[in-house]
Amino acid sequence: MTQPIRRILALTGGVGGAKLALGLANTLNPGQVTFVVNTGDDFEHLGLRICPDIDTLLYTLSNEANPDTGWGRRNETWHCLEALGQLGGETWFRLGDRDLATHLIRTTALTAGASLTTVTQRLSERLGIQHPVLPMCDQNVATMIGSTAGEMAFQHYFVRERCAPNVTGFRFQGSEQATLSPALQELLTAPDLDGILICPSNPFLSVDPILAVPGMRAALKAARAPVVAISPIIQGAAIKGPTAKIMAELGLPQDALAVARHYGDLLDGFILDSHDASLLEDVRGSGLDAIATPTLMLTLQDKMNLAKVAVDFVNEITTSNTP
Amino acid sequence: MTQPIRRILALTGGVGGAKLALGLANTLNPGQVTFVVNTGDDFEHLGLRICPDIDTLLYTLSNEANPDTGWGRRNETWHCLEALGQLGGETWFRLGDRDLATHLIRTTALTAGASLTTVTQRLSERLGIQHPVLPMCDQNVATMIGSTAGEMAFQHYFVRERCAPNVTGFRFQGSEQATLSPALQELLTAPDLDGILICPSNPFLSVDPILAVPGMRAALKAARAPVVAISPIIQGAAIKGPTAKIMAELGLPQDALAVARHYGDLLDGFILDSHDASLLEDVRGSGLDAIATPTLMLTLQDKMNLAKVAVDFVNEITTSNTP
Repeated sequence: MTQPIRRILALTGGVGGAKLALGLANTLNPGQVTFVVNTGDDFEHLGLRICPDIDTLLYTLSNEANPDTGWGRRNETWHCLEALGQLGGETWFRLGDRDLATHLIRTTALTAGASLTTVTQRLSERLGIQHPVLPMCDQNVATMIGSTAGEMAFQHYFVRERCAPNVTGFRFQGSEQATLSPALQELLTAPDLDGILICPSNPFLSVDPILAVPGMRAALKAARAPVVAISPIIQGAAIKGPTAKIMAELGLPQDALAVARHYGDLLDGFILDSHDASLLEDVRGSGLDAIATPTLMLTLQDKMNLAKVAVDFVNEITTSNTP
Repeated sequence: MTQPIRRILALTGGVGGAKLALGLANTLNPGQVTFVVNTGDDFEHLGLRICPDIDTLLYTLSNEANPDTGWGRRNETWHCLEALGQLGGETWFRLGDRDLATHLIRTTALTAGASLTTVTQRLSERLGIQHPVLPMCDQNVATMIGSTAGEMAFQHYFVRERCAPNVTGFRFQGSEQATLSPALQELLTAPDLDGILICPSNPFLSVDPILAVPGMRAALKAARAPVVAISPIIQGAAIKGPTAKIMAELGLPQDALAVARHYGDLLDGFILDSHDASLLEDVRGSGLDAIATPTLMLTLQDKMNLAKVAVDFVNEITTSNTP
């Protein structure tokens, strides 16, 4: 008989991860899940510190996410951006008027000496979010994309070049100086941490930066809780974003198995889509517990269903590992 | 016979001065008038460098000024400010969405090392303004208000306290480190500078900070061109703002004569309102050329009329002083 799950840690990046995060937030009790968010996409723009993945998660969890764009805030307007264009300012990064408030408050607080963890917590509370949201670290780490067109910063690759360059590798600039924040250390060693989920985010651009924080990978492996990843690849394609394209450019098979192998011995379990059930035996053959379940999350119910399956799966692994 | 005027320098502050500035800009040829603007009201807010008087002038000259509020931009929206409130940010200073773009561009450029003179020039060009607009200096100077409630920063006094405290004096913090910018030095010694106007701005809060820049007062006096001030007081009252209230609190008579005396020997001429023509003899008695004319500027035509009268008056003084 399984015991009810106590605390869950979920690693997440942008839009794909935020879908499962919303499912988890709506399935678990307040405070039961802590989200650890990629900050490798963060950058300075017009003097503002912008954290795209944190904001996507905060807006998603507070029902403030823009359903039309997939990023930014609901009911957004673009008057500042229009004026920036008129005055000769940069407009390639589309800053919405409401979204700007988040960047202004964050930048002001960081400048005043607050940590990104503290600032994120404040914003999260103001947005009424009931589960902790932690940046992967408080130091600035910048994901740099190696490509056949040279190395470029993440936003340059992702927004300006629309992921067109052929990717050859990644570098997480500044990660060697990053450290596990006190909040994250507490979480990773918490006796009631019963599961660690890797959301279906881009493994290279969203999850690997988190794993590059010194001590993170070792702490995840050392945790008593099993680590389970959900495949962002369904039938050889990514629902959103350049995951499959990048896998092809890196010479990897574009399938869920390759995602499982990418995470390697970090994982205890793996969840792939029902359409990819034929890969189950191969995944299990590499020593992982594995299940197949619908992973396409179009509705809130889809998100909650997958969240419930993932939490139950983690719980089963915990129970089967307990003598 | 008078010669046509060549170049005019006009010292100006916020709304009151900007009205005459618009008249001058519409009366004189492109480049013929240079505006020198008070920056003592400038401050940092949410990490942004905000220059209220420069912006009021830029927006006024480019027909972008908000006719409803008297400050900020036309067709303004407040979505960022609403979101700031939601997220626990400061909302006492009302930043409009379009207006924000100006502050973002300015702050980014200043941080990158551009001078306020250069940034103002760029913004001015983008807004299609054809007359140079110069800040009084490139250094940060902050007008501090001495009051019976203690000393406070300008925006604290003006916006938060709505000018309620009883004023006892002023201090222009940082002015001792300020210098005349190269552009201003060029202007003040230009052989074709035929007149210097002090717009009907608040003498204490808008003009005195300009005069506090080391070398400014001496350069204005040393210039060949006559210095003429236009009274911001009509029949003992200010059209807008706390000028008359401040004069009362400082124990000064609330009339145009007291304004003329406040500027003292800096002036060669003084323009007061037709309603105050009874003061003409007193003003002339203090050694100034003086005229009375309608100075209430409600319409663009009012502004152009006063501009034309002021320029003609300067020209007459120049001619009468030339052997």
